[in-house]
Amino acid sequence: MSPAPGPRPGGRSARIQQAVHASTRKLLDERGRADITVPMIAADAGVTPSTIYRRWGDITELFADVALERLHPDASPRETGSVRGDLVAWAQDYLEEMSSPVGRAALRDVVMSADTLRSEDGTNQFKCATFCRTQIETILGRGEPVQGVVEHVIDHVVAPIIYRILFDLDPLEPDRVEELVDHALDAAVRV
Amino acid sequence: MSPAPGPRPGGRSARIQQAVHASTRKLLDERGRADITVPMIAADAGVTPSTIYRRWGDITELFADVALERLHPDASPRETGSVRGDLVAWAQDYLEEMSSPVGRAALRDVVMSADTLRSEDGTNQFKCATFCRTQIETILGRGEPVQGVVEHVIDHVVAPIIYRILFDLDPLEPDRVEELVDHALDAAVRV
Repeated sequence: MSPAPGPRPGGRSARIQQAVHASTRKLLDERGRADITVPMIAADAGVTPSTIYRRWGDITELFADVALERLHPDASPRETGSVRGDLVAWAQDYLEEMSSPVGRAALRDVVMSADTLRSEDGTNQFKCATFCRTQIETILGRGEPVQGVVEHVIDHVVAPIIYRILFDLDPLEPDRVEELVDHALDAAVRV
Repeated sequence: MSPAPGPRPGGRSARIQQAVHASTRKLLDERGRADITVPMIAADAGVTPSTIYRRWGDITELFADVALERLHPDASPRETGSVRGDLVAWAQDYLEEMSSPVGRAALRDVVMSADTLRSEDGTNQFKCATFCRTQIETILGRGEPVQGVVEHVIDHVVAPIIYRILFDLDPLEPDRVEELVDHALDAAVRV
Protein backbone atom coordinates (compact mmCIF):
# COMPACT_ATOMS: atom_id res chain seq x y z
CA MET A 1 0.00 0.00 0.00
CA SER A 2 1.35 3.46 -0.82
CA PRO A 3 1.25 6.02 2.00
CA ALA A 4 -2.17 7.70 1.73
CA PRO A 5 -2.50 11.42 2.28
CA GLY A 6 -4.56 12.42 5.30
CA PRO A 7 -4.38 11.62 8.97
CA ARG A 8 -1.35 9.57 9.95
CA PRO A 9 -2.00 6.13 11.46
CA GLY A 10 -2.08 6.22 15.22
CA GLY A 11 -3.16 9.87 15.24
CA ARG A 12 -6.33 11.22 16.80
CA SER A 13 -8.34 10.49 13.68
CA ALA A 14 -7.27 6.83 13.64
CA ARG A 15 -8.02 6.47 17.36
CA ILE A 16 -11.54 7.85 16.84
CA GLN A 17 -12.09 5.45 13.96
CA GLN A 18 -10.92 2.48 16.00
CA ALA A 19 -13.10 3.42 18.97
CA VAL A 20 -16.20 4.00 16.84
CA HIS A 21 -15.67 0.76 14.89
CA ALA A 22 -15.16 -1.21 18.10
CA SER A 23 -18.33 0.21 19.67
CA THR A 24 -20.31 -0.48 16.51
CA ARG A 25 -19.10 -4.09 16.37
CA LYS A 26 -19.91 -4.54 20.04
CA LEU A 27 -23.44 -3.17 19.65
CA LEU A 28 -23.99 -5.26 16.49
CA ASP A 29 -23.10 -8.37 18.49
CA GLU A 30 -25.57 -7.41 21.19
CA ARG A 31 -28.65 -6.30 19.26
CA GLY A 32 -30.30 -5.84 15.83
CA ARG A 33 -29.31 -3.06 13.45
CA ALA A 34 -32.68 -1.37 13.74
CA ASP A 35 -32.14 -0.89 17.50
CA ILE A 36 -28.77 0.84 17.18
CA THR A 37 -28.54 4.64 16.95
CA VAL A 38 -25.68 7.07 16.37
CA PRO A 39 -25.95 8.58 19.89
CA MET A 40 -25.72 5.05 21.33
CA ILE A 41 -22.50 4.34 19.44
CA ALA A 42 -21.11 7.78 20.31
CA ALA A 43 -21.78 7.24 24.03
CA ASP A 44 -20.06 3.86 23.95
CA ALA A 45 -17.06 5.17 22.01
CA GLY A 46 -16.71 8.33 24.09
CA VAL A 47 -17.16 10.74 21.17
CA THR A 48 -19.95 13.18 20.31
CA PRO A 49 -22.67 12.14 17.84
CA SER A 50 -21.65 15.05 15.61
CA THR A 51 -18.16 13.54 15.28
CA ILE A 52 -19.80 10.44 13.81
CA TYR A 53 -22.15 12.39 11.53
CA ARG A 54 -19.27 14.55 10.28
CA ARG A 55 -17.09 11.58 9.48
CA TRP A 56 -19.57 8.96 8.27
CA GLY A 57 -22.62 10.96 7.18
CA ASP A 58 -25.11 8.48 8.59
CA ILE A 59 -25.37 5.16 10.36
CA THR A 60 -25.68 3.15 7.13
CA GLU A 61 -22.29 4.44 6.02
CA LEU A 62 -20.79 3.55 9.37
CA PHE A 63 -22.24 0.01 9.21
CA ALA A 64 -20.78 -0.36 5.71
CA ASP A 65 -17.39 0.89 6.87
CA VAL A 66 -17.32 -1.67 9.68
CA ALA A 67 -18.55 -4.34 7.27
CA LEU A 68 -15.75 -3.60 4.81
CA GLU A 69 -13.19 -3.95 7.56
CA ARG A 70 -14.58 -7.39 8.38
CA LEU A 71 -14.44 -8.36 4.70
CA HIS A 72 -10.78 -7.37 4.24
CA PRO A 73 -8.51 -9.78 6.00
CA ASP A 74 -4.86 -8.78 5.82
CA ALA A 75 -3.96 -12.33 4.96
CA SER A 76 -2.55 -13.07 1.56
CA PRO A 77 -4.49 -15.80 -0.30
CA ARG A 78 -3.42 -19.35 0.65
CA GLU A 79 -0.83 -21.09 -1.53
CA THR A 80 -1.64 -24.60 -2.70
CA GLY A 81 1.03 -25.08 -5.35
CA SER A 82 -1.04 -24.10 -8.41
CA VAL A 83 -2.97 -21.06 -9.59
CA ARG A 84 -6.06 -23.20 -10.11
CA GLY A 85 -5.75 -24.62 -6.59
CA ASP A 86 -5.18 -21.16 -5.09
CA LEU A 87 -8.26 -19.78 -6.88
CA VAL A 88 -10.42 -22.70 -5.70
CA ALA A 89 -9.17 -22.32 -2.11
CA TRP A 90 -9.69 -18.55 -2.13
CA ALA A 91 -13.17 -18.80 -3.67
CA GLN A 92 -14.24 -21.51 -1.21
CA ASP A 93 -13.07 -19.38 1.73
CA TYR A 94 -14.79 -16.34 0.25
CA LEU A 95 -18.04 -18.27 -0.24
CA GLU A 96 -17.91 -19.58 3.32
CA GLU A 97 -17.21 -16.13 4.75
CA MET A 98 -19.81 -14.25 2.72
CA SER A 99 -22.58 -16.79 3.21
CA SER A 100 -22.18 -16.74 7.01
CA PRO A 101 -24.70 -14.55 8.88
CA VAL A 102 -21.98 -11.94 9.51
CA GLY A 103 -20.90 -11.99 5.86
CA ARG A 104 -24.47 -11.66 4.56
CA ALA A 105 -25.19 -8.74 6.87
CA ALA A 106 -21.91 -7.10 5.83
CA LEU A 107 -22.76 -7.52 2.13
CA ARG A 108 -26.16 -5.96 2.64
CA ASP A 109 -24.64 -3.07 4.60
CA VAL A 110 -22.27 -2.41 1.74
CA VAL A 111 -25.04 -2.49 -0.87
CA MET A 112 -27.30 -0.32 1.29
CA SER A 113 -24.79 2.44 1.93
CA ALA A 114 -25.49 5.41 -0.24
CA ASP A 115 -21.95 6.76 -0.35
CA THR A 116 -23.15 10.27 -0.82
CA LEU A 117 -19.91 11.59 0.65
CA ARG A 118 -17.52 9.72 -1.62
CA SER A 119 -16.38 9.99 -5.19
CA GLU A 120 -17.57 7.23 -7.46
CA ASP A 121 -14.46 5.06 -7.29
CA GLY A 122 -14.41 5.39 -3.50
CA THR A 123 -17.85 3.87 -2.97
CA ASN A 124 -18.10 1.01 -0.51
CA GLN A 125 -19.48 -1.25 -3.23
CA PHE A 126 -16.46 -0.57 -5.41
CA LYS A 127 -14.06 -1.03 -2.50
CA CYS A 128 -15.62 -4.43 -1.92
CA ALA A 129 -15.17 -5.36 -5.60
CA THR A 130 -11.61 -4.00 -5.60
CA PHE A 131 -10.74 -6.15 -2.62
CA CYS A 132 -11.75 -9.29 -4.57
CA ARG A 133 -9.88 -8.11 -7.62
CA THR A 134 -6.69 -7.54 -5.60
CA GLN A 135 -6.85 -10.99 -4.04
CA ILE A 136 -7.41 -12.61 -7.45
CA GLU A 137 -4.57 -10.60 -9.01
CA THR A 138 -2.23 -11.73 -6.23
CA ILE A 139 -3.06 -15.35 -7.03
CA LEU A 140 -2.81 -14.91 -10.81
CA GLY A 141 0.55 -13.17 -10.36
CA ARG A 142 1.95 -16.46 -9.05
CA GLY A 143 1.53 -18.17 -12.45
CA GLU A 144 2.02 -17.48 -16.14
CA PRO A 145 0.29 -14.24 -17.11
CA VAL A 146 -2.89 -14.76 -19.20
CA GLN A 147 -4.66 -11.68 -20.52
CA GLY A 148 -8.01 -10.85 -18.94
CA VAL A 149 -8.32 -13.77 -16.52
CA VAL A 150 -9.19 -11.55 -13.59
CA GLU A 151 -12.37 -10.28 -15.26
CA HIS A 152 -13.39 -13.85 -16.08
CA VAL A 153 -12.89 -14.87 -12.46
CA ILE A 154 -15.04 -11.90 -11.38
CA ASP A 155 -17.81 -12.78 -13.85
CA HIS A 156 -17.79 -16.57 -13.51
CA VAL A 157 -16.76 -17.13 -9.87
CA VAL A 158 -17.26 -14.03 -7.69
CA ALA A 159 -20.51 -12.90 -9.34
CA PRO A 160 -22.39 -16.22 -8.93
CA ILE A 161 -21.17 -16.54 -5.31
CA ILE A 162 -22.51 -13.08 -4.45
CA TYR A 163 -25.65 -13.25 -6.60
CA ARG A 164 -26.80 -16.48 -4.99
CA ILE A 165 -26.16 -15.15 -1.50
CA LEU A 166 -28.10 -11.95 -2.15
CA PHE A 167 -30.97 -13.26 -4.28
CA ASP A 168 -31.33 -16.99 -4.02
CA LEU A 169 -32.50 -19.26 -1.24
CA ASP A 170 -29.27 -21.19 -0.94
CA PRO A 171 -25.65 -20.19 -1.50
CA LEU A 172 -23.63 -22.12 -4.08
CA GLU A 173 -22.55 -25.61 -3.10
CA PRO A 174 -18.81 -25.46 -2.25
CA ASP A 175 -18.33 -28.28 -4.82
CA ARG A 176 -19.57 -26.02 -7.59
CA VAL A 177 -16.71 -23.57 -6.93
CA GLU A 178 -14.18 -25.85 -8.57
CA GLU A 179 -16.31 -26.12 -11.69
CA LEU A 180 -16.71 -22.33 -11.82
CA VAL A 181 -12.96 -21.73 -11.50
CA ASP A 182 -12.30 -24.17 -14.37
CA HIS A 183 -14.92 -22.43 -16.37
CA ALA A 184 -13.35 -19.00 -15.78
CA LEU A 185 -9.88 -20.29 -16.73
CA ASP A 186 -11.26 -21.97 -19.89
CA ALA A 187 -13.13 -18.82 -20.84
CA ALA A 188 -9.94 -16.76 -20.51
CA VAL A 189 -7.98 -19.15 -22.72
CA ARG A 190 -10.67 -19.32 -25.36
CA VAL A 191 -11.08 -15.56 -25.89
CA MET B 1 -51.22 -19.17 -12.10
CA SER B 2 -53.59 -21.07 -9.86
CA PRO B 3 -56.25 -19.01 -8.14
CA ALA B 4 -54.63 -17.75 -4.92
CA PRO B 5 -56.57 -17.70 -1.69
CA GLY B 6 -57.16 -14.24 -0.30
CA PRO B 7 -58.62 -11.05 -1.66
CA ARG B 8 -60.05 -11.34 -5.17
CA PRO B 9 -58.52 -9.11 -7.85
CA GLY B 10 -60.40 -5.89 -8.22
CA GLY B 11 -61.56 -6.05 -4.60
CA ARG B 12 -60.88 -3.48 -1.93
CA SER B 13 -57.48 -4.95 -1.14
CA ALA B 14 -56.33 -4.73 -4.76
CA ARG B 15 -57.63 -1.17 -5.05
CA ILE B 16 -55.64 -0.15 -1.95
CA GLN B 17 -52.52 -1.78 -3.35
CA GLN B 18 -52.93 0.00 -6.68
CA ALA B 19 -53.49 3.37 -5.02
CA VAL B 20 -50.54 3.00 -2.65
CA HIS B 21 -48.22 1.80 -5.44
CA ALA B 22 -49.30 4.68 -7.70
CA SER B 23 -48.69 7.26 -4.96
CA THR B 24 -45.30 5.73 -4.14
CA ARG B 25 -44.25 5.81 -7.81
CA LYS B 26 -45.44 9.40 -8.12
CA LEU B 27 -43.52 10.52 -5.03
CA LEU B 28 -40.39 8.61 -6.15
CA ASP B 29 -40.51 10.52 -9.44
CA GLU B 30 -40.76 13.81 -7.58
CA ARG B 31 -38.18 13.47 -4.79
CA GLY B 32 -35.48 11.31 -3.17
CA ARG B 33 -36.28 8.19 -1.15
CA ALA B 34 -34.99 9.75 2.06
CA ASP B 35 -37.59 12.53 1.80
CA ILE B 36 -40.59 10.20 1.46
CA THR B 37 -42.54 9.07 4.51
CA VAL B 38 -45.39 6.62 5.05
CA PRO B 39 -47.82 9.39 6.11
CA MET B 40 -46.98 11.25 2.89
CA ILE B 41 -47.81 8.22 0.75
CA ALA B 42 -50.93 7.51 2.81
CA ALA B 43 -52.20 11.07 2.35
CA ASP B 44 -51.63 10.91 -1.40
CA ALA B 45 -53.29 7.49 -1.72
CA GLY B 46 -56.25 8.37 0.50
CA VAL B 47 -55.59 5.62 3.06
CA THR B 48 -54.46 5.74 6.69
CA PRO B 49 -50.76 5.25 7.53
CA SER B 50 -51.71 2.22 9.63
CA THR B 51 -53.17 0.54 6.52
CA ILE B 52 -49.71 0.81 4.97
CA TYR B 53 -47.86 -0.36 8.09
CA ARG B 54 -50.25 -3.32 8.47
CA ARG B 55 -49.81 -4.41 4.88
CA TRP B 56 -46.15 -3.63 4.17
CA GLY B 57 -44.50 -3.46 7.59
CA ASP B 58 -42.32 -0.49 6.72
CA ILE B 59 -41.42 1.84 3.89
CA THR B 60 -38.46 -0.26 2.70
CA GLU B 61 -40.82 -3.18 2.06
CA LEU B 62 -43.19 -0.91 0.19
CA PHE B 63 -40.35 0.45 -1.98
CA ALA B 64 -39.26 -3.12 -2.72
CA ASP B 65 -42.82 -4.12 -3.62
CA VAL B 66 -43.09 -1.23 -6.07
CA ALA B 67 -39.61 -2.05 -7.39
CA LEU B 68 -40.57 -5.68 -8.05
CA GLU B 69 -43.62 -4.56 -9.99
CA ARG B 70 -41.39 -2.43 -12.21
CA LEU B 71 -39.02 -5.37 -12.73
CA HIS B 72 -41.74 -7.81 -13.81
CA PRO B 73 -43.04 -6.93 -17.23
CA ASP B 74 -45.93 -9.12 -18.32
CA ALA B 75 -44.30 -9.51 -21.71
CA SER B 76 -43.05 -12.91 -22.75
CA PRO B 77 -39.37 -12.89 -23.82
CA ARG B 78 -38.83 -11.83 -27.43
CA GLU B 79 -38.54 -14.57 -30.09
CA THR B 80 -35.62 -14.36 -32.49
CA GLY B 81 -35.76 -17.84 -34.06
CA SER B 82 -33.19 -19.58 -31.82
CA VAL B 83 -32.76 -20.26 -28.11
CA ARG B 84 -29.31 -18.66 -28.17
CA GLY B 85 -30.70 -15.56 -29.89
CA ASP B 86 -33.62 -15.36 -27.46
CA LEU B 87 -31.26 -15.61 -24.46
CA VAL B 88 -28.99 -12.90 -25.85
CA ALA B 89 -31.94 -10.61 -26.57
CA TRP B 90 -33.46 -11.20 -23.13
CA ALA B 91 -30.16 -10.68 -21.31
CA GLN B 92 -29.40 -7.50 -23.25
CA ASP B 93 -32.83 -6.11 -22.39
CA TYR B 94 -32.37 -7.15 -18.77
CA LEU B 95 -28.95 -5.50 -18.59
CA GLU B 96 -30.31 -2.31 -20.11
CA GLU B 97 -33.28 -2.21 -17.74
CA MET B 98 -31.35 -3.04 -14.56
CA SER B 99 -28.47 -0.67 -15.25
CA SER B 100 -30.81 2.30 -15.79
CA PRO B 101 -31.22 4.64 -12.79
CA VAL B 102 -34.70 3.23 -12.15
CA GLY B 103 -33.45 -0.35 -12.40
CA ARG B 104 -30.49 0.26 -10.07
CA ALA B 105 -32.70 1.90 -7.48
CA ALA B 106 -35.19 -0.98 -7.76
CA LEU B 107 -32.41 -3.56 -7.28
CA ARG B 108 -31.16 -1.78 -4.20
CA ASP B 109 -34.70 -1.53 -2.80
CA VAL B 110 -35.08 -5.28 -3.25
CA VAL B 111 -31.75 -6.06 -1.55
CA MET B 112 -32.48 -3.61 1.27
CA SER B 113 -35.92 -4.93 2.13
CA ALA B 114 -35.80 -7.10 5.20
CA ASP B 115 -38.84 -9.21 4.42
CA THR B 116 -39.55 -9.77 8.05
CA LEU B 117 -43.17 -10.45 7.25
CA ARG B 118 -42.58 -13.12 4.64
CA SER B 119 -41.57 -16.75 4.61
CA GLU B 120 -38.16 -17.44 3.17
CA ASP B 121 -39.27 -18.40 -0.33
CA GLY B 122 -41.50 -15.32 -0.46
CA THR B 123 -38.70 -12.81 0.07
CA ASN B 124 -38.40 -9.98 -2.43
CA GLN B 125 -34.88 -11.07 -3.30
CA PHE B 126 -36.09 -14.56 -4.13
CA LYS B 127 -39.06 -13.21 -6.10
CA CYS B 128 -36.60 -11.19 -8.15
CA ALA B 129 -34.46 -14.30 -8.81
CA THR B 130 -37.57 -16.37 -9.59
CA PHE B 131 -38.69 -13.84 -12.14
CA CYS B 132 -35.38 -14.27 -14.04
CA ARG B 133 -35.59 -18.04 -13.77
CA THR B 134 -39.13 -18.06 -15.20
CA GLN B 135 -38.13 -15.89 -18.15
CA ILE B 136 -35.11 -18.11 -18.87
CA GLU B 137 -37.21 -21.28 -18.57
CA THR B 138 -39.72 -19.88 -21.04
CA ILE B 139 -36.92 -19.33 -23.55
CA LEU B 140 -35.28 -22.71 -22.95
CA GLY B 141 -38.68 -24.39 -23.32
CA ARG B 142 -38.70 -23.27 -26.95
CA GLY B 143 -35.74 -25.54 -27.82
CA GLU B 144 -34.42 -29.04 -27.17
CA PRO B 145 -34.35 -29.71 -23.43
CA VAL B 146 -30.80 -29.73 -21.94
CA GLN B 147 -30.42 -30.63 -18.26
CA GLY B 148 -29.44 -27.80 -15.93
CA VAL B 149 -29.05 -24.99 -18.47
CA VAL B 150 -31.15 -22.60 -16.43
CA GLU B 151 -28.72 -22.70 -13.49
CA HIS B 152 -25.80 -22.08 -15.84
CA VAL B 153 -27.58 -19.07 -17.32
CA ILE B 154 -28.19 -17.74 -13.79
CA ASP B 155 -24.52 -18.23 -12.78
CA HIS B 156 -22.84 -17.10 -15.99
CA VAL B 157 -25.22 -14.47 -17.39
CA VAL B 158 -27.59 -13.08 -14.75
CA ALA B 159 -25.06 -13.08 -11.88
CA PRO B 160 -22.35 -11.05 -13.68
CA ILE B 161 -24.95 -8.58 -14.96
CA ILE B 162 -26.24 -7.95 -11.44
CA TYR B 163 -22.86 -8.14 -9.66
CA ARG B 164 -21.33 -5.51 -11.92
CA ILE B 165 -24.31 -3.19 -11.49
CA LEU B 166 -24.24 -3.47 -7.70
CA PHE B 167 -20.50 -3.55 -7.05
CA ASP B 168 -18.53 -2.32 -10.01
CA LEU B 169 -18.10 1.10 -11.56
CA ASP B 170 -19.51 0.19 -14.95
CA PRO B 171 -22.15 -2.31 -16.00
CA LEU B 172 -21.18 -5.05 -18.44
CA GLU B 173 -20.71 -4.00 -22.03
CA PRO B 174 -23.78 -5.19 -24.00
CA ASP B 175 -21.32 -6.96 -26.38
CA ARG B 176 -20.11 -9.17 -23.54
CA VAL B 177 -23.63 -10.58 -23.10
CA GLU B 178 -23.33 -12.71 -26.22
CA GLU B 179 -20.06 -14.21 -24.98
CA LEU B 180 -21.59 -14.96 -21.57
CA VAL B 181 -24.61 -16.70 -23.12
CA ASP B 182 -22.26 -18.88 -25.18
CA HIS B 183 -20.26 -19.72 -22.05
CA ALA B 184 -23.42 -20.72 -20.21
CA LEU B 185 -24.60 -22.92 -23.08
CA ASP B 186 -21.13 -24.53 -23.41
CA ALA B 187 -20.95 -25.12 -19.67
CA ALA B 188 -24.31 -26.87 -19.72
CA VAL B 189 -23.27 -29.17 -22.57
CA ARG B 190 -19.91 -30.04 -20.98
CA VAL B 191 -21.25 -31.11 -17.59
